[in-house]
Amino acid sequence: MLFRLVCVVCALAVIGAAAARPDPGRPATPDVTHLIAQPEFKAATAALAADDERVTAENITLTEIPAPPFKESARAAAYAKMMRDSGLRDVNIDGIGNVIGIRPGADATLPVLVVSAHLDTVFPEGTNVKVRREGTKLLAPGIGDDTRGLAVLLAFVRALDRAHIRTPRDIVFVGDVGEEGQGDLRGIRYLFENNLRAKGALAYITVDSTGAENITTVGVGSKRYRLVFSGPGGHSYMAFGVVNPLVPLAKVVTDLYSVQVPAEPKTTYSASVIGGGTSVNSIPSEVFLEVDLRSADAGELARLDGKLQDIVSTAVAEENSARNTRNGKVSVAIKTIGERPAGHTDEKSPLVIAAVEASRAFGYTPKLIAVSTDANIPMSLGIPAIAIGSGATGGREHAPDEYVDVAKPNSVRGMSVGLATLIAAAGGIAR
Amino acid sequence: MLFRLVCVVCALAVIGAAAARPDPGRPATPDVTHLIAQPEFKAATAALAADDERVTAENITLTEIPAPPFKESARAAAYAKMMRDSGLRDVNIDGIGNVIGIRPGADATLPVLVVSAHLDTVFPEGTNVKVRREGTKLLAPGIGDDTRGLAVLLAFVRALDRAHIRTPRDIVFVGDVGEEGQGDLRGIRYLFENNLRAKGALAYITVDSTGAENITTVGVGSKRYRLVFSGPGGHSYMAFGVVNPLVPLAKVVTDLYSVQVPAEPKTTYSASVIGGGTSVNSIPSEVFLEVDLRSADAGELARLDGKLQDIVSTAVAEENSARNTRNGKVSVAIKTIGERPAGHTDEKSPLVIAAVEASRAFGYTPKLIAVSTDANIPMSLGIPAIAIGSGATGGREHAPDEYVDVAKPNSVRGMSVGLATLIAAAGGIAR
Repeated sequence: MLFRLVCVVCALAVIGAAAARPDPGRPATPDVTHLIAQPEFKAATAALAADDERVTAENITLTEIPAPPFKESARAAAYAKMMRDSGLRDVNIDGIGNVIGIRPGADATLPVLVVSAHLDTVFPEGTNVKVRREGTKLLAPGIGDDTRGLAVLLAFVRALDRAHIRTPRDIVFVGDVGEEGQGDLRGIRYLFENNLRAKGALAYITVDSTGAENITTVGVGSKRYRLVFSGPGGHSYMAFGVVNPLVPLAKVVTDLYSVQVPAEPKTTYSASVIGGGTSVNSIPSEVFLEVDLRSADAGELARLDGKLQDIVSTAVAEENSARNTRNGKVSVAIKTIGERPAGHTDEKSPLVIAAVEASRAFGYTPKLIAVSTDANIPMSLGIPAIAIGSGATGGREHAPDEYVDVAKPNSVRGMSVGLATLIAAAGGIAR
Repeated sequence: MLFRLVCVVCALAVIGAAAARPDPGRPATPDVTHLIAQPEFKAATAALAADDERVTAENITLTEIPAPPFKESARAAAYAKMMRDSGLRDVNIDGIGNVIGIRPGADATLPVLVVSAHLDTVFPEGTNVKVRREGTKLLAPGIGDDTRGLAVLLAFVRALDRAHIRTPRDIVFVGDVGEEGQGDLRGIRYLFENNLRAKGALAYITVDSTGAENITTVGVGSKRYRLVFSGPGGHSYMAFGVVNPLVPLAKVVTDLYSVQVPAEPKTTYSASVIGGGTSVNSIPSEVFLEVDLRSADAGELARLDGKLQDIVSTAVAEENSARNTRNGKVSVAIKTIGERPAGHTDEKSPLVIAAVEASRAFGYTPKLIAVSTDANIPMSLGIPAIAIGSGATGGREHAPDEYVDVAKPNSVRGMSVGLATLIAAAGGIAR
């Protein structure tokens, strides 16, 4: 999970609306209060409780298999075996490295529910991923984001089986690659481009990081660029007066930071990383700038993106007319290093209502948040999608001292929220 | 030698003026045409010719002793031994690492001539400095800049001895440290601050790099800064709106590049090296910019420096008022990473006239140039100073494929120019 924006106002609004009837134009999601009162569901939560130590054991096993960006295959292989051992069918690894397993429902012709957790971590190769235990606290890079999510998906499968719950719809479980950073959601992107059942899915839930209160309904979109400005370079004194690629780079930063963006939908920019140049006594021949643009609204993001493109081309043209080009002109190469589509899921959709009700039913205070997760992709395709937590608590995500606290009552309670949401989204219990 | 500005107009003017009588207010330098006609000088050039292979051998030996910036001591020790073997007196290594040897003249009470070549190269530790030979061409990092200069100084001493030439004045020979880059002329700076005979010198000649045509009479001054901009940093989306240290950095570049500087005396600036930032999705907490300011005139350099200081403080203040400082303000640390005083030696001074005449007398076309060399220091102190070449030809200085071509006739002819200049500057031949 990349970041969180707590939208307390929205959350309160939705909690108020949660009692309202689902939109008649949408597929009905069973009432969660009714669902969790069923004996099968009680059996399922009992199974989760009985299974809690195994969840932690598998969380540790998977955490200790490094899964740096673009190098998830060892963990994927282990996860595929765990999926098979937990009873999923047709387990396979797809063309980009996602692990996929099916839990058949009552009617294979119905659109499916896709449920995922991501295999990758932000941590580079060579990071010490040995899990350290302090009471109920487990510390290791990636343990909460999102390795517990992977383990909890398996617990859901086993609990459904033990409680003999059959959902009307098939559930496609996925351990996906490339959620973090420059992975740029490539696993889920590939899934929704290539997997026919995912493309036709009714809904999507990603279980990402710990907790049971936050429900992501807004997928913040982003565009990330690496702008490489080049020029002829030369000696700082001898060649003084010739174009310098650092000047348009600076102009881009200056001009970008005078752009006014809306506070709502929240839209942002950041000039983040710079580098280049040879020595203090040389006009640089190449310098670069990395820029991050974001918005909760695709239109605003596109508008900001267009402004940036104008600023860049104007800055380059200005430098070529302001200084000498006898040894060559300044030019720019614009490389997209990240692109996440913005999207959102209606706060009154049955999927969101189910998640909110489930969280409240187990004593949590649900909050609707705006985050960039795997859910951005289905949201951008119009498929109702949310991100929820894997229960328990945790913190310091993306830091070496990342941790989860798996104290059993809270762990089981949190998983129960996810399981209720998942059963509801898959159409309830088939009779 | 750092760089060259060929000033053809000046050179022509001086060559025309070279026949004029020296300024009566200055110490007379003997007529070079007369000097080179003397039998002792002819004997000295014959000695140079006989010694040419040893010059090359010592050039190779010294080149293969690495002398990276701030690590000249191994080469200094070898050079001290060579100075003693070549007959210099009182050879010692001073407090900063310069190797100093004296060739006594007729009157030890007269102000001395200081003659130097620099020990250091621009190449870092670990650079392969093995010399490769292709016919008369020798290739190795630093072989011409300035290791041949070191070898040629020794040849001068031996030629003077073999020709029994006694000069009126003592000559202080120096192999100095820290000429290049961040060495910032520290060897010669130290010499003229601490060595009493150097402080009272009549004149200074540095033999730096190959050739026998270029005579440096303008020492370009420079100020070099590393500007480190700091701020609180933060998440690019979550913390949007807080101050970003990259914005004032960019403003400094933009504003500096709108400053008008005089073409004469040539005054320049360069925004050269940049770096910093954590990741594309983070507001940077620290970024840096390296800036190089130069002028052939100390007043213009100071004026430009003042403008830069204003630009920097304004840019930082503007960012702190333009954006949110709730997590901290943006600040800047200004570190001087280089400071070379500007200076010049009168084109009509006896020293310059001698150098011009010597070059012409051996068939070269002398050019007066503006360069930053060790000569900047004595120039800035009002001591007549020039930089001349070590003869032979060469190229690709500061590049790994640096070379010298030591074809004998040209090597000896070039060294003869330097020797004539040196004898003239030391007062001629004492009778």
